[in-house]
Amino acid sequence: MPIPPDATLADVGEFGLIAELVGLFPQGEQVIVGPGDDAAVLRVRTGHVVVSTDLVVEGRHFRRDWASAADVGHRAAAQNLSDINAMGGRATSLTIGLAAPADLPAQWALDFARGFAEECALVGASVVGGDLTRADQVVIAVTVLGACTRSPVLRSGARPGDVLAITGRQGWAAGGLAVLGRGFRSPRVLVEAYRRPEPPYDAGPIAAEAGATSMIDVSDGLLADAGHLASGSGVAIDVHTAAFDVPEPLEAVGAATGAEPISFILGGGDDHALLATFEDLDAVPDGWSVVGSVAEGSGVTVDGAEYDGPTGWTHF
Amino acid sequence: MPIPPDATLADVGEFGLIAELVGLFPQGEQVIVGPGDDAAVLRVRTGHVVVSTDLVVEGRHFRRDWASAADVGHRAAAQNLSDINAMGGRATSLTIGLAAPADLPAQWALDFARGFAEECALVGASVVGGDLTRADQVVIAVTVLGACTRSPVLRSGARPGDVLAITGRQGWAAGGLAVLGRGFRSPRVLVEAYRRPEPPYDAGPIAAEAGATSMIDVSDGLLADAGHLASGSGVAIDVHTAAFDVPEPLEAVGAATGAEPISFILGGGDDHALLATFEDLDAVPDGWSVVGSVAEGSGVTVDGAEYDGPTGWTHF
Repeated sequence: MPIPPDATLADVGEFGLIAELVGLFPQGEQVIVGPGDDAAVLRVRTGHVVVSTDLVVEGRHFRRDWASAADVGHRAAAQNLSDINAMGGRATSLTIGLAAPADLPAQWALDFARGFAEECALVGASVVGGDLTRADQVVIAVTVLGACTRSPVLRSGARPGDVLAITGRQGWAAGGLAVLGRGFRSPRVLVEAYRRPEPPYDAGPIAAEAGATSMIDVSDGLLADAGHLASGSGVAIDVHTAAFDVPEPLEAVGAATGAEPISFILGGGDDHALLATFEDLDAVPDGWSVVGSVAEGSGVTVDGAEYDGPTGWTHF
Repeated sequence: MPIPPDATLADVGEFGLIAELVGLFPQGEQVIVGPGDDAAVLRVRTGHVVVSTDLVVEGRHFRRDWASAADVGHRAAAQNLSDINAMGGRATSLTIGLAAPADLPAQWALDFARGFAEECALVGASVVGGDLTRADQVVIAVTVLGACTRSPVLRSGARPGDVLAITGRQGWAAGGLAVLGRGFRSPRVLVEAYRRPEPPYDAGPIAAEAGATSMIDVSDGLLADAGHLASGSGVAIDVHTAAFDVPEPLEAVGAATGAEPISFILGGGDDHALLATFEDLDAVPDGWSVVGSVAEGSGVTVDGAEYDGPTGWTHF
């Protein structure tokens, strides 16, 4: 039964909407039982499962006037898929919890789900279950399951003498957010990067294969996440700003806003780039840039000194 | 570092609270990597994983003045563990997403986590990961993973001629909620049943072993969930009210509120009883009560007729 374009969740009802949503999620061969029962049942061939969960809250992680429902779906999926990537794994299955006001347009939920499914399709993962309930604001809870073909790459394996490397766009989404925050819509490429991050999904398993000693996806901010590697591994990390190519659109935003372009790169966290350490330069796979070094000690420095700009965000 | 008794989430900060929370969650031997990395890594010995997710929203599923934080933790865990029970499986691992206002007492989050961990300990499951972020109201997202030693019991296997049976308390929580809704606190046993359901965790795997043809946990309401079995299996189900023992406290609430005591049993959904079908009376395990029958057709009837009372709830 098609849902009228102006229907709200209250009009459509929980079960009506779920019936529509389920049709948007193709089920891969790893799915023994998909949505619709008390639980989904998934085939596991690797003897282990990698699992992560993330919340996405309206007004905090997205605004409905700054991103389309499909964009929000892409982002919500991407940030979870990226967590599996950062373990050196491949995502197989996801669940979605959607809490939303009764007056949310049903079409928003459907477009969100379509965007979410499209992002999952990039890595061959399936949405296998979910929950839908009412709340004062939109809260999206995603859990992702995956598998590693090698040992998972943790945050704790960096050693003094390792090199720090990054792959994927970094700082673009932060630039896009700065643009939107000032009421602008361009440079469009940055706004699009904020709306739909493009995590380097293949790079995680390749880095694991190449022997990455530690890895994290940049979600709290590059320096903050480098800090997680440093504290997890009990080492000091120095980030070398000269190693970053500052893309032209970030130069433009810097010029327009008075911010240092490098600050978007060092503090930004919405691109879901991968940050990893490798034993030496020879171990760094193609497509990664070496941007720092690991030494004995603790904490993160920038060009050998403490950094006094924003390093990322905290949630409270 | 101990958290001051009057501290809020904003005072403690995301990472401060996470550090405290992680200490409350013991990790079982199935956990290869627990909380603190981009994802947890779990050992899977059965070749499959069963997964389910549920949202719990303040003001919708609980009120902070009607239940303690520990109660909310017990309930949030129980309703998820129960979904694995309803597949005939055993839960192994859970993730928690907690979205909360910045002024939430940090102690509430800690007490919630303690209650959650206590409930998980009943079945030997571990909390292996989570996410914490800010929102206008408390929204708790739980995902549970488990395993079945036999084929999962689905909603779709009931056949004409089967018997319908139930195990676990049923209607007690609905009675407790009716009491709280009128500003009372007794019968205390019902209020406690609402605050901390006691799902029959061992009964699911035992029913699977006994050859249950279909199974569901009662969470939407007994008749509503019987309806899910009926529609999932393409059969008609008749519920026999005379088969239920109406417990004395429900009689008391009925007398005090003017409601038929049986209406709490037929419409209630917060006890997480198990409802299942079996091929015949001989297959029904000890501890289950036969409360209905399965026939060709569709839909749910009560004592052979349509039921005009409340059958459960919908979320919008």
